[in-house]
Amino acid sequence: MNGETGIDVEKAAEFLGLSPSRFFELLEKKAIVRNWDEYEDIFRFDSHISGVVEGSVLLKRGGTFEIIRGFPKIKRAMTLFPAIERNFQGIGSVLVEEKMNGYNVRVTEYRGKLIALTRSGHVCPYSTERVQHLLNHDFFREHPELVVYGEMAGPDNPYVPKDIYGLESLDLFVFDIRCKSDGAPLPVMERRELADDYGFRQVELFGEFGIEEAPYEITRIIKELGKKEHEGVVIKDPEMVLQPIKYTCSESNCADLRHAFRFYNDSGRDYMFPRIVREGFQSVEWNENEEELRERCLRLGESILRPMIRSIREVQMDELISDDVRIRVRDRGTIERFRSYLERLGIDVVFGPPERIEDEYLVRISKINKSTTDKTKSIIIEGQLWS
Amino acid sequence: MNGETGIDVEKAAEFLGLSPSRFFELLEKKAIVRNWDEYEDIFRFDSHISGVVEGSVLLKRGGTFEIIRGFPKIKRAMTLFPAIERNFQGIGSVLVEEKMNGYNVRVTEYRGKLIALTRSGHVCPYSTERVQHLLNHDFFREHPELVVYGEMAGPDNPYVPKDIYGLESLDLFVFDIRCKSDGAPLPVMERRELADDYGFRQVELFGEFGIEEAPYEITRIIKELGKKEHEGVVIKDPEMVLQPIKYTCSESNCADLRHAFRFYNDSGRDYMFPRIVREGFQSVEWNENEEELRERCLRLGESILRPMIRSIREVQMDELISDDVRIRVRDRGTIERFRSYLERLGIDVVFGPPERIEDEYLVRISKINKSTTDKTKSIIIEGQLWS
Repeated sequence: MNGETGIDVEKAAEFLGLSPSRFFELLEKKAIVRNWDEYEDIFRFDSHISGVVEGSVLLKRGGTFEIIRGFPKIKRAMTLFPAIERNFQGIGSVLVEEKMNGYNVRVTEYRGKLIALTRSGHVCPYSTERVQHLLNHDFFREHPELVVYGEMAGPDNPYVPKDIYGLESLDLFVFDIRCKSDGAPLPVMERRELADDYGFRQVELFGEFGIEEAPYEITRIIKELGKKEHEGVVIKDPEMVLQPIKYTCSESNCADLRHAFRFYNDSGRDYMFPRIVREGFQSVEWNENEEELRERCLRLGESILRPMIRSIREVQMDELISDDVRIRVRDRGTIERFRSYLERLGIDVVFGPPERIEDEYLVRISKINKSTTDKTKSIIIEGQLWS
Repeated sequence: MNGETGIDVEKAAEFLGLSPSRFFELLEKKAIVRNWDEYEDIFRFDSHISGVVEGSVLLKRGGTFEIIRGFPKIKRAMTLFPAIERNFQGIGSVLVEEKMNGYNVRVTEYRGKLIALTRSGHVCPYSTERVQHLLNHDFFREHPELVVYGEMAGPDNPYVPKDIYGLESLDLFVFDIRCKSDGAPLPVMERRELADDYGFRQVELFGEFGIEEAPYEITRIIKELGKKEHEGVVIKDPEMVLQPIKYTCSESNCADLRHAFRFYNDSGRDYMFPRIVREGFQSVEWNENEEELRERCLRLGESILRPMIRSIREVQMDELISDDVRIRVRDRGTIERFRSYLERLGIDVVFGPPERIEDEYLVRISKINKSTTDKTKSIIIEGQLWS
């Protein structure tokens, strides 16, 4: 299976410091997975292998291999105090940027155009088309050693559609720029200036705060963000030497739960549980009074039950439970490529007809949640028991 | 390790239809586990082995072996309609008994006294002392072929203490009587008469209902039980040929969640998740209006957050999170035996001094929840991040 492709497997193995037989073994185990179609000489790492994190991507560019490193997982503060003090020891202040609610992509140049890699390392055809129009290509020609990390946010978002940012369609907000060679991030202000130079949109910078005042300032910011159902913040060492940490709003957390409980049989329990636990810690941190606590309890309970009830009622009315999203593309060919991509990922989709809007096409997509539909039907229609 | 004990392992293996080497292998793997101390020739099945369910117990009585079968797991109706119709096909009516909230024991005679086996098949020294005084021993002498299945309920309950039944201490409520040989249950009314003859207390019988009216009648019963925070009902084929099913009250479900979220890092996510999902199905089944739904959402949210917040606050005040229970014994020796039993099960306990009450001793026990205490402390005191 490997001889037919353009990539030289022996050289790829050598680049990774692996023997060819070990590389083939990893392919066999699907620890390293080859892409398909036009990207079949791009490999993604489906697990952590010899110092290369999961989600990393190996590709060949101009005769040499390069690794685009996976997104570093950002750990979460359950309470700002004492987490900030503890995790930013030895520095005087932190920079606070917005954590947007969308999906992560890494952008790099590949064979003369930009490609967008998802968190898991897939080349997403939709995001790839979008970034062609969203980012200034000069950056990638002038800085081939750098990778752009950003959040794709807005309503025309097939993964996490959100209307909260006042965007017409979809935009990319840069939050990190890193060196390919070692994955090292640029210092925050250096990254912001560089991105500005090329006209990239970036996540909002709320300011720089001393370690002691930071918990109070961030609490204030989070309460404002919560009112708009924005997700939260990432707290960063300006030099990007210490690991950033994230902290989120209850309102956004509850929105995640609403989505998860609508597809209750599909969303993992491991997804729901920490989101529930966060609410308890934030309530203690904010020293909530009886009325505020009651409101939080009601918000949590409603985030869990209302979407479940909606799903059960839909199944009673013989409907399929689906997640309805949309995309907007310039090239009609992207629609078919994206459908085929989702199907390969095992997602059951129904695409609506393309609607022309100026020079683009809007396509509505229903992602059918068969697991929750079937489980609900078995209970409410067929009377099956919960074992 | 096996040669020293009274039980003849070769004969035990033969009785189970296993080769001695296979029996030893199962002991090694801890699929079959030997008890200790005075009960060391009692074996419990820690997994399902050749037709014998998990929780079953093998013991020797009067020169022959016998198996006390594990509790059959009772499946749950998520909604009464259509579950009752579907699961009791071919019979005209069902009997509805109360499902009490306590802990299950199986009682049998062993070396001239009664022993109480827990769900997992351990001989609980506390329950064993209690059943001596709670059950008429004549039954066991006159019916050596039968096992009594009952719920231990009341406040002096080291596992699930409940004040809801108006009991002074602890009582045993019979809900099943089965033949040792094949595990077959007696028909419900036959069991009730036999248990009555010996003066056993039994779970309440709410009545016999036709299949069509049952969902309405049981909904009425459940709403009444809910007001008292009682747990729910078990719906039975009068002949006990078809499998019984259970159905519970939201109030009791929320009480379970309150307990689970107080020990949020210890109680499994797999425990919490189905309890949350039940609330959604019941709300749809009862076709709740906006006000009822809001109340349910608030009840659910409060069941989750209030106990968590209590635990976090306790840790902030440098207290250990513990589950405070009590036992009441006649023989002081039981106290030490029960402490040693809990410690062997890996439970971290602090026993208070025995308080004399008439001819008995009341002992308060704190079961320390180290896992939740440590996790909470790491977050709120040490500022650790949630990965």
